[in-house]
Amino acid sequence: MAKKFAELQARMSPESRADAEQLLQQHLKEMPLHELRKAQELSQETLAKALHVNQAAISKMERRTDMYISTLRNYIRAMGGELEIIATFPEGQVKIENFAK
Amino acid sequence: MAKKFAELQARMSPESRADAEQLLQQHLKEMPLHELRKAQELSQETLAKALHVNQAAISKMERRTDMYISTLRNYIRAMGGELEIIATFPEGQVKIENFAK
Repeated sequence: MAKKFAELQARMSPESRADAEQLLQQHLKEMPLHELRKAQELSQETLAKALHVNQAAISKMERRTDMYISTLRNYIRAMGGELEIIATFPEGQVKIENFAK
Repeated sequence: MAKKFAELQARMSPESRADAEQLLQQHLKEMPLHELRKAQELSQETLAKALHVNQAAISKMERRTDMYISTLRNYIRAMGGELEIIATFPEGQVKIENFAK
């Protein structure tokens, strides 16, 4: 049964809705992958070891403008983070759960 | 020059930092792609037309647990949304900009 976005939002708690609006307006720091790695004080060699690839593979990965979601998730996890996939609409934001795990 | 996450955060405005903390604690609605499509009142046929593929390809895409970021971005754009790739760390959140556009 199809549900309108507005109806789904109406069923969110006021707190969740406030959070969603907050998120919509926020300006998170944007960074490319290699900068994020450096910010975490990790070398390409360290990440390569964690991902069982060689350093050249990490270097190549960091220059890509497209990749599988699982590849990106593994890279971010190797840095100690978690990947989140979010779809932003004028009416609000939704976390996409197809790719969890 | 490598920069520590904490230093990068220190250079964020107080507003940006408050937003980042807010985001960290929030609980966005989670949805699989097909539910999001139904919430937008779009059929597989409509999306298929927008993406120049057939309906079976949309059906298959919605059942995948992994795909190229560009594929997901195109799917979300066809629904009128924008894809955001976020890495969450205990220290905060960062938007990954490698895949913008």
